[in-house]
This record gives sequence, C-alpha cells and structure tokens, in this order.
Amino acid sequence: MTGQVFQVEPVAYVVGGRVEPTDDYWGGTRSIIRIDASRFGPESTTGLEEFSHLEIVFRFHLTDPTDLKLGARRARDNPDWPPVGIFGHRNMRRINWLGVSRCRLLKVDGLDLHVEDLDAVDGTPVLDIKPWFVEMGPRGEIKQAPWSVEMLRNYYAPARPT
Amino acid sequence: MTGQVFQVEPVAYVVGGRVEPTDDYWGGTRSIIRIDASRFGPESTTGLEEFSHLEIVFRFHLTDPTDLKLGARRARDNPDWPPVGIFGHRNMRRINWLGVSRCRLLKVDGLDLHVEDLDAVDGTPVLDIKPWFVEMGPRGEIKQAPWSVEMLRNYYAPARPT
Repeated sequence: MTGQVFQVEPVAYVVGGRVEPTDDYWGGTRSIIRIDASRFGPESTTGLEEFSHLEIVFRFHLTDPTDLKLGARRARDNPDWPPVGIFGHRNMRRINWLGVSRCRLLKVDGLDLHVEDLDAVDGTPVLDIKPWFVEMGPRGEIKQAPWSVEMLRNYYAPARPT
Repeated sequence: MTGQVFQVEPVAYVVGGRVEPTDDYWGGTRSIIRIDASRFGPESTTGLEEFSHLEIVFRFHLTDPTDLKLGARRARDNPDWPPVGIFGHRNMRRINWLGVSRCRLLKVDGLDLHVEDLDAVDGTPVLDIKPWFVEMGPRGEIKQAPWSVEMLRNYYAPARPT
C-alpha cells in the first residue's frame, strides 16, 4: 500500500487573529473561519450554532517542509524534557503538516464562523470543520507525559499584556 | 487563494479491528496502527508510552467520493432530527474525507501501536498520529445539539453480542 497519495483542498481560510505562530498565550484570540463561497452555500453551516465548540483540521502552511526531524527530539529544545519521537509531538514540524484544534464558536454569520482560541494564524488554510461531540473526546482515565503538562501551562492563557 | 491543493501521504495503516464501517458499538474494538517502516525508524515512537490516548487523523477511504451532499441533511436520515449543513456532521461523507478520532493507546511495540476504540476499519490510511494533550481539549462550557447526543448513545458502547 506504500506510495498512496491523497489530495486535500482548503474549504476555508482563517481571517484575522494572530499573525505570527508563536508558542503560547492563545487565550482570547479571536478570528474568523471564512468558508469558500465559491464552493459552499449558506446551507453548509445550517445547525452549527447549536454547538459551542468546533474541531478544525488545518494546514501548518508557514512551516518549511524541509524542517523535519525524524529522530527523537526534546519539545521546544528544552534540555529538561526527554527526547520524544516525531509522533509524540503536536507542533508544526510534522509529516503532512496537519493541525487539529478545538476552538469556541462565538457566532455563525453566513459562511463566516467567528471563533475564539483557534491556534492557527491569519491566512491558515482550513481543511475540515467539524462540530465537537463530547462523546468523541477521549474515554476513560487520561495519562499524559509530565513534560507536556509543563509545556502547556501558558498555551491557552490570556494574551500577555504588551 | 482558491485553487490551492495539498498532498498528504499515509504514515501508517490500521491493521485488524472492524472490517465494515458500521455506525455504532465501537467500544472495546482493538486494532493496530502500523507505522510505515520504510519511512520511519523505531525512534519515531519514543516517549509515546507516557500517553494514555492518541489523536488520529485518517482518510475515510471506503467512501465513494461522488457521494457528497452539499445541502443540509438529517444525520442518519432520521426524520426526527433537524437538517444540518455539511460542516455540522462528522461522518464519512465529507469534503477531503478526513476523520479525526481519539483512541486509547494500549501498548507501543516498535512501530506497532496497539489501540482500543479506534473507529476506523482495517486498512484505513492514517495521515497523522498525535498524543492527546488534555489542555488542547475544548475549553469552557460545552453545548451540543440534542440530535447528536441521541445519535451517539451507543457509538462507543461495547460491541453488541452477535
């Protein structure tokens, strides 16, 4: 089965919000997911307003595709944390450059979805938009590497005063 | 920006588990996510065993790509539920055919990830494997359309006795 390739096309783009893909303080970031009006009509968002959260699949489009380390490495190059393989990270330097995030849906305005806490910058190509179903979250007790808890302490903290 | 296309390649395939993509009773399904050994070495899974859950992005490869309804429709064609737009569903008839699921990681055996509750059938191409970080789940109070709660009542229920 090796050698299979699939094509994916943006269904929307992120408009507004943060311009630089810095690591932390995404809390309160507001942006719009603007659905491609040349392909989708107003019916495509019918019923979405009944959901508080969306799950977004997007392309890490700013990453240099040659900047890929297949070996194990420490998150954020922090010497206090253990080396972890490429499938143990969630950052943008990854195979296929697919990001998956949950954000709050503030308002549906036709094909514009106003969202909060989406950790994707202005101009990001969006590949899928799904409603968040609680039942499809992780089931049972959750265990997580300590380094990741430390790393994420300020990830969704409110934007730092400048 | 219209007309952009990206290519994605499977990093792994699902081996075992369910053969038919039926709707419910995925609870307890066991399968293996077999990472492509021609591209990835044993280091690629280093540190994964510290996580209880993975987030998997996969291709709904069994769906007929012409079977797409862009207009609003009722989930599972249930007349009791409201018509919802294409971005309000999570099923396999979708643009780009990207599935996103959380599953329990039972064991890391080299490039074989033994998992439970993965709702993707035998042979499914896997496009990304990420650890589940609790901090990246939905933040704040969650609201969800009543039809989706009804629909998912038995989704992760234990396999029905045959």
